Amino acid sequence: LALKPWNREDIAFPEQYSRRGRQVMGSFIDSSLSLLARQTHPVISLAMGCPGPDAFPLDDIARVVGEIMGREAAVALNYGPTEGDALLRRQLLEAEAVASDLEVNPDCLIVTSGGMQGLDLVNKLLINPGDIVVAELPSYSNGLATVHNYEGRLTQIPLDAEGLSVAECRNRFDKAAVKPKLFYVIPSFQNPSGITMSLGRRHELLDLARSYRAMVLEDDPYGDLRFEGESVPSLFALDKERGTVISVRTFSKIFSPGIRVGWVLAPRNVIAKMVAAKQSMDTCTNILGQKIVGRLMAEGTMRRHILRLRQEYRLKRDLMLASLDRRFGREPGFTWTRPEGGFFLWMTFPEGVSAEALFPVALAGGVAFIPGPAFTVHGGLTNAVRLCFTYPLTHEIDEAIRRLRTAYQSSSARRIGQP
Amino acid sequence: LALKPWNREDIAFPEQYSRRGRQVMGSFIDSSLSLLARQTHPVISLAMGCPGPDAFPLDDIARVVGEIMGREAAVALNYGPTEGDALLRRQLLEAEAVASDLEVNPDCLIVTSGGMQGLDLVNKLLINPGDIVVAELPSYSNGLATVHNYEGRLTQIPLDAEGLSVAECRNRFDKAAVKPKLFYVIPSFQNPSGITMSLGRRHELLDLARSYRAMVLEDDPYGDLRFEGESVPSLFALDKERGTVISVRTFSKIFSPGIRVGWVLAPRNVIAKMVAAKQSMDTCTNILGQKIVGRLMAEGTMRRHILRLRQEYRLKRDLMLASLDRRFGREPGFTWTRPEGGFFLWMTFPEGVSAEALFPVALAGGVAFIPGPAFTVHGGLTNAVRLCFTYPLTHEIDEAIRRLRTAYQSSSARRIGQP
Repeated sequence: LALKPWNREDIAFPEQYSRRGRQVMGSFIDSSLSLLARQTHPVISLAMGCPGPDAFPLDDIARVVGEIMGREAAVALNYGPTEGDALLRRQLLEAEAVASDLEVNPDCLIVTSGGMQGLDLVNKLLINPGDIVVAELPSYSNGLATVHNYEGRLTQIPLDAEGLSVAECRNRFDKAAVKPKLFYVIPSFQNPSGITMSLGRRHELLDLARSYRAMVLEDDPYGDLRFEGESVPSLFALDKERGTVISVRTFSKIFSPGIRVGWVLAPRNVIAKMVAAKQSMDTCTNILGQKIVGRLMAEGTMRRHILRLRQEYRLKRDLMLASLDRRFGREPGFTWTRPEGGFFLWMTFPEGVSAEALFPVALAGGVAFIPGPAFTVHGGLTNAVRLCFTYPLTHEIDEAIRRLRTAYQSSSARRIGQP
Repeated sequence: LALKPWNREDIAFPEQYSRRGRQVMGSFIDSSLSLLARQTHPVISLAMGCPGPDAFPLDDIARVVGEIMGREAAVALNYGPTEGDALLRRQLLEAEAVASDLEVNPDCLIVTSGGMQGLDLVNKLLINPGDIVVAELPSYSNGLATVHNYEGRLTQIPLDAEGLSVAECRNRFDKAAVKPKLFYVIPSFQNPSGITMSLGRRHELLDLARSYRAMVLEDDPYGDLRFEGESVPSLFALDKERGTVISVRTFSKIFSPGIRVGWVLAPRNVIAKMVAAKQSMDTCTNILGQKIVGRLMAEGTMRRHILRLRQEYRLKRDLMLASLDRRFGREPGFTWTRPEGGFFLWMTFPEGVSAEALFPVALAGGVAFIPGPAFTVHGGLTNAVRLCFTYPLTHEIDEAIRRLRTAYQSSSARRIGQP
């Protein structure tokens, strides 16, 4: 029986795409990762923002999956509540009480399909086409893409050592007729810079937002991964009950991205609207994933796992910093951040170096990173790169930085040699 | 240590909700299900559109989960490709070849987080505020809500025994200045009516859509669950390579809703846009779920499972039809559909009966259904109900219909007794 091939480039009536459909924006990171996936030689990836391949508590997961299959399989396989599995919701509220001394009302929490869906929901509920959204420069590319895909107008404001520059926000908007509607920030161990917003800056940001009658979207995937230094309360906790902040959390960095479970803390009416919207987005978050995470939290395994990750990731960060010091530290023009937690550091090459031109050279030399412009909507940061220290194995880290140095040498030699 | 309560009704600046955020629509079905969940006495549910609680191949699932945890746990727990897991994608393409003799190009398929996300993506890419979308009357309430949440204007056109009335569509739109942009149809074992669109009607619909330069969204969760009668090709297969149809599929009805895995078949450019959009919606579909389904397909278990479901669901449908004949068949004014597959049948009570008024009486009497108006955007179908025959256990079906009869009697007695 001969099969008929089915292959068509576009829809019959491409004029029927919506405005949003015409301009939908993907992620620069994913383009780099596709290129990475196509390499046939071994590449050490400092590109992906992933837990290390050896960082999953496999035995514990296998055990709770067995328990779920044995005791509540039919429930785990059927539809569940859109707001999230009951056990997981209870555990999340308890964990928030431990982390921030807050007894959050259960109606102020929804379980989402990863933090990404939380960001999507916030933009859906708040952003009309043309609304101004302030984000950090640089910032998480998928977070920026979400704003773009709801046709928000992004303004990126630089970070300094204490986080988003509120002074620069005031310069731009204090006298502007139209104020921002939303501040999108990653205050702890920021992606991609690794910078943490200071307590003072957090208060300044909340004051600024309130004076503009703007909302704050706190994207906080890394807050639980502090290796050293003093912990800073989340914007959600600092906001008290004032309703200025919507806080998006996820298990992607502290446990598993593949499981796609996150949550949002917000006033009740926001959560009710999110539940309604989610019903016609994906009905509910996958139940098996929710039950795995809920059980690991309830038995204390998740807490122990996070403590273990902090140790391992601190070691990896230290290895990367030491290697950078050794291989790039003696020359002027190179700088990098020294994050107190999280996944990433941000490295700046001498002016005139193009990280995007360096990328294929580095890839051929066996190391991958994400070039700076991926974290901007209007370009720039051309001589910077994001380096992830959690994903490479411990023994690969110095070798990765050595390859980066070699790639830089050969590419700058080539640049000088060019006519 | 005293916890501070955190509980706020709304955001500090509710004027900041977007237009879409202001009017976001949930599901009437979910409201009924919440009511159902609050009952303390045992209720037989004909309300939920779920596989039976005894319809999951638990041993097979536990076995493949064990295999995944043993052999590819770290991959299953990390991020995966936005377009879907490679094994699952291959299996879906092979299954489509078997089902429709089509060798679909791999770039014409994306894995989604359930069929619901497929519907969401199609609306995202096509619907501008105010665009006209034709849906069946009655139709799937979450499908209608998605259109509403993208600010599309819904027109529901009645079904007849052969499916969506194309004649009625022509009456409404042939002379209209603004044509529909999209036809949203569930052609096989329609939710909620159980009606299957005939082959002739499918061709008529495709011709009509093309003459309006409109797209067709084929929502096909039940197509693989035919118990009897001659199989009808999907709209996607009938469209050949003309790019009029986007087809949304899911494992929710043939395997498990809780696993949240579906897929979409469409021209390459649509899929590329969906991949880009999905990156900032939920990054990727949960990997463990994709790997479970992919492995069950690859080893042939999924095929055997679907064959088994067809037998079981046919028996359940027969039991419900026999019970309806016995308990409602002798009186005029009662009608119901006799679906050749799927999950639902649609029952109409005598004129003047309110299914919404009957609902609490039936619930108190131990049986639940979904009232007709849940499947409309502008109301109507007040004397109709959707009955799901797949979810109740075999021995519960006649008892459920007996309770429905009793509820009807007592509620009509009460109605007659009212002043």
